Amino acid sequence: MANKLTIPYRMRWWGWGVDGNDKPITPSSEKLLQQEIGMSLEANNPPRDISEVSIPEGRLNDDDVAALSGIVGEENVATDHDTRVKHAVGRSYADLARLRAAKLDVAPDAVVLPKNEQQIVDLFKVCSERKIAIVAFGGGTSVVGGVEAVDGGLGKAIAVSMVAFDKILEINEVAGTATVETGVFGPDLEEALAAKGFTAGHFPQSFEYSTVGGWVSCRSAGQESSGYGRIDRNVIGMRVVTPAGTMEFRDMPSSASGPNPRELFLGSEGTLGIITHVTIALNKRPKKMLFDTYFFDGFDEAASVLRKLEQDGHIPHLARLSDEKETHFGLTQLAKGSLSENLAKYLDMRGIEHPCMVLFGFAQTDAVGARVARERLATRLLGKKCVRVGAIPGMTWVNHRFSSPYLRDVMMTRRVGVDTLETATTWDQASELRRKIIERMEAAGEAHGTPVYVFCHISHMYESGCSLYFTYFFRETEGEILQQWMDIKSAASNAMMEFGGTITHHHGVGQDHSPQYYVENTELFTKVMRAVKAELDPAASSTRPSSPPARARWRSVTTAR
Amino acid sequence: MANKLTIPYRMRWWGWGVDGNDKPITPSSEKLLQQEIGMSLEANNPPRDISEVSIPEGRLNDDDVAALSGIVGEENVATDHDTRVKHAVGRSYADLARLRAAKLDVAPDAVVLPKNEQQIVDLFKVCSERKIAIVAFGGGTSVVGGVEAVDGGLGKAIAVSMVAFDKILEINEVAGTATVETGVFGPDLEEALAAKGFTAGHFPQSFEYSTVGGWVSCRSAGQESSGYGRIDRNVIGMRVVTPAGTMEFRDMPSSASGPNPRELFLGSEGTLGIITHVTIALNKRPKKMLFDTYFFDGFDEAASVLRKLEQDGHIPHLARLSDEKETHFGLTQLAKGSLSENLAKYLDMRGIEHPCMVLFGFAQTDAVGARVARERLATRLLGKKCVRVGAIPGMTWVNHRFSSPYLRDVMMTRRVGVDTLETATTWDQASELRRKIIERMEAAGEAHGTPVYVFCHISHMYESGCSLYFTYFFRETEGEILQQWMDIKSAASNAMMEFGGTITHHHGVGQDHSPQYYVENTELFTKVMRAVKAELDPAASSTRPSSPPARARWRSVTTAR
Repeated sequence: MANKLTIPYRMRWWGWGVDGNDKPITPSSEKLLQQEIGMSLEANNPPRDISEVSIPEGRLNDDDVAALSGIVGEENVATDHDTRVKHAVGRSYADLARLRAAKLDVAPDAVVLPKNEQQIVDLFKVCSERKIAIVAFGGGTSVVGGVEAVDGGLGKAIAVSMVAFDKILEINEVAGTATVETGVFGPDLEEALAAKGFTAGHFPQSFEYSTVGGWVSCRSAGQESSGYGRIDRNVIGMRVVTPAGTMEFRDMPSSASGPNPRELFLGSEGTLGIITHVTIALNKRPKKMLFDTYFFDGFDEAASVLRKLEQDGHIPHLARLSDEKETHFGLTQLAKGSLSENLAKYLDMRGIEHPCMVLFGFAQTDAVGARVARERLATRLLGKKCVRVGAIPGMTWVNHRFSSPYLRDVMMTRRVGVDTLETATTWDQASELRRKIIERMEAAGEAHGTPVYVFCHISHMYESGCSLYFTYFFRETEGEILQQWMDIKSAASNAMMEFGGTITHHHGVGQDHSPQYYVENTELFTKVMRAVKAELDPAASSTRPSSPPARARWRSVTTAR
Repeated sequence: MANKLTIPYRMRWWGWGVDGNDKPITPSSEKLLQQEIGMSLEANNPPRDISEVSIPEGRLNDDDVAALSGIVGEENVATDHDTRVKHAVGRSYADLARLRAAKLDVAPDAVVLPKNEQQIVDLFKVCSERKIAIVAFGGGTSVVGGVEAVDGGLGKAIAVSMVAFDKILEINEVAGTATVETGVFGPDLEEALAAKGFTAGHFPQSFEYSTVGGWVSCRSAGQESSGYGRIDRNVIGMRVVTPAGTMEFRDMPSSASGPNPRELFLGSEGTLGIITHVTIALNKRPKKMLFDTYFFDGFDEAASVLRKLEQDGHIPHLARLSDEKETHFGLTQLAKGSLSENLAKYLDMRGIEHPCMVLFGFAQTDAVGARVARERLATRLLGKKCVRVGAIPGMTWVNHRFSSPYLRDVMMTRRVGVDTLETATTWDQASELRRKIIERMEAAGEAHGTPVYVFCHISHMYESGCSLYFTYFFRETEGEILQQWMDIKSAASNAMMEFGGTITHHHGVGQDHSPQYYVENTELFTKVMRAVKAELDPAASSTRPSSPPARARWRSVTTAR
């Protein structure tokens, strides 16, 4: 059986990214969280050693392992403890909390590394016969329970790591497209594209550790999606292997040839098959990105200004509005503790009582164009109640754009629960939806005896609406943390359903959002999706269990601590 | 049974639009077609009287009619000859040719006009029990055999006219959206939106006679889709009634909540259910549209310039490139016969040997902005091999933008076969695909003893590719015209499959494109779609016949003439 090093895994097993990037909480942020949620003064919940993590016994028998090895080679079937732990969960708060508690109630019975498409075809065949569930695993950055090796009632489950599908198959400079295998990681894609003067323009916060396959199958949106578009809008061709056969949908910028078959797999999150390569539309790589920053007076006011810019076609490439609390927290995270207070005084003098920061980014292929766009926007904002403060906050943001998840790890050592969640809605409903989500989350925290410090930003704008992205902190109560988290998150999720939101704008459904998925997409449509599943994956469907409530089993984990 | 006037139908029964709009062929065009395809000097194939049209006997029994009348009221069930003829076919060449021959092999057994959603629910129930196929009918402008009341093996079929679903349910000025019933016609929609300063921006050539439901269910694209986007990209909410139940998908600008359920119905062309209302994202209504016109030297050269404009984000709202033949034909259609020759001489002097016209339209909410955009584009084109001739061709085009289909009727009286077909592909394949399609069509015409005069334009541009829209003329051979048409069209359709195209960019699949639909979307995906159909429409699926080749039955019609 394989040495654990043969299945590459990029992140540290217990947290985000790799060692050496953690940022300490600044004294100002610390003070804020002590005031707001009573954050502990001690750092008494460090990660343990991977060997301490308990996972369920593997359920494969020798014949199973031999059958898998017969396909991918013995060296590409790992059943060792460490590899199973690394491929057991994603990177949601609940995942990190369970890893820190060193107790996982789920892990793949093996991790398998196919090297070519025929091996995936054969894995589907053998696993259909042997009733082994397959869960596709890319970078493992899911924050919605999307990569856990649940067996769907089959009794056995393996993770299929896609990272050997790491080839850029073609960069077509005329069409401005790239055909890439789905195990390619973000930085590797961008490096290859940069050499030809292109960018995919897809920069989710997970960019450094997530794969194209994860982006596509979860319909992710990057930080610059207002300019470059969501990944699902940029996929023009696709190849999918399913237990029932392989489909290739040709590269096509647009078509009326029936319902777009690509759309059935965008967002299917590995449930219908494994996407092996996609063709995505690229963008010219900008030479430079310029920034500008404004402070508006209140979230609703600022959102209304951004809405009009978007609807008039004047929104820049990147636009990001932080509400008052996020603005405040962001400033406390800057090195100089007094900055926040001084800036607040200055803004108050200028009549901005409820400062909400709006960051604009102007990426253009020529720097002059970006400068012109920046000044033209400034002209449009003349007469609005806002204060322009220049490029520095934007440059700070871009330098730290991928580092926020590290802060979670630091916070969790301090027994601060920290997570994010997100939705979208039409512009007319955005203000109320934001308010209701925050209210419901605070109420849910209160029921657990902890304040919840919630803030929100808008970072994706559409003509008809926008995303709402929430970050929240709560004080962990030992032995109850998963329940705390689940109740606070459920409160938010249910508010999304009640007040016109979607259960997810770009994180995906996973297990965590499945209750609301049914509400949002209707019961009948979920029956349709089951019919599709039955056609493409008959073996799984024949043994489909009655679904247990998502994450229900965590209660036992929680109680056991 | 209902008087035929109770089921509204907007077009003249035998041709496009309404009387009074026909344009004669200009002497220059006439001369061209005489030279190119040997067009007849006589006009000896006029439309007949509707009473002469033979249609199959109605197959409903008294109980069927009583059951339908019990739902929608007796006055809304029409089984009279004229109403059945009017709802029998769409407006493809093959449809018009059959109407002119006064012999239809298909007609709905009744035309039913539901007034509310419950009536549609009840119609599905009763028709499922009675094994009567339902075909949704909007404006009846399909050019791909999309509205024929084929019975799918059930033995009976009715057309359900959606024109009573004519309400604008809401115009949301904050979100910039309109929620509209699907029987609303284009001009009625635009009139309501204009009053609030909006436009849907959707102007297919059928605009005057097509409905929102037709647009949405066929994934149509309008003449200004480069600026406003295809209709499928602008649908954010939807309600669908199916035999298995009703689904409403909330208004959502964007989501990652699994595969987008709306996408399954966009392009479903009535096969999965009836869409009763949609919410579409609107645009600010431009005060004015400015035009500019350039002549480039050759299609490939011009396409390459347009491609770069599009990929650099500099393409204007409307951009349309005609190839050499289309440019020439267009000029012969202008009133002054000598214009074409004189212009050609002038362009030749300026070094343009193969004139290809490019029309640009600049629609902006302020006229200054449009003028700036026009001049900025002119600056970008400095140094390109092209000649700028100003706004007049554009203004002429916009005045005639909806009138081209009338020309078909005039041509058919002269026994000229005339039709259009369209595809899309990636930029790198566009040139060869265009050439191959034309070659194959010409060869197919030759086999029938007629030259085919084919020309092409690009009118929809995407970062990664473009549409290709073909118009073609051929000389009808009496008794063979449907076979001529089918062979020429099939030659084009098969070339699309062979050389990287889609079978349709915006006309839809209908019956005409079903052979290529299977090729393009793969056999396995069509099985998936059948599974979806079985879930939503069990009665139809239980009696599914083995599919006959599309349009196969026309051979008998042809022979009979």
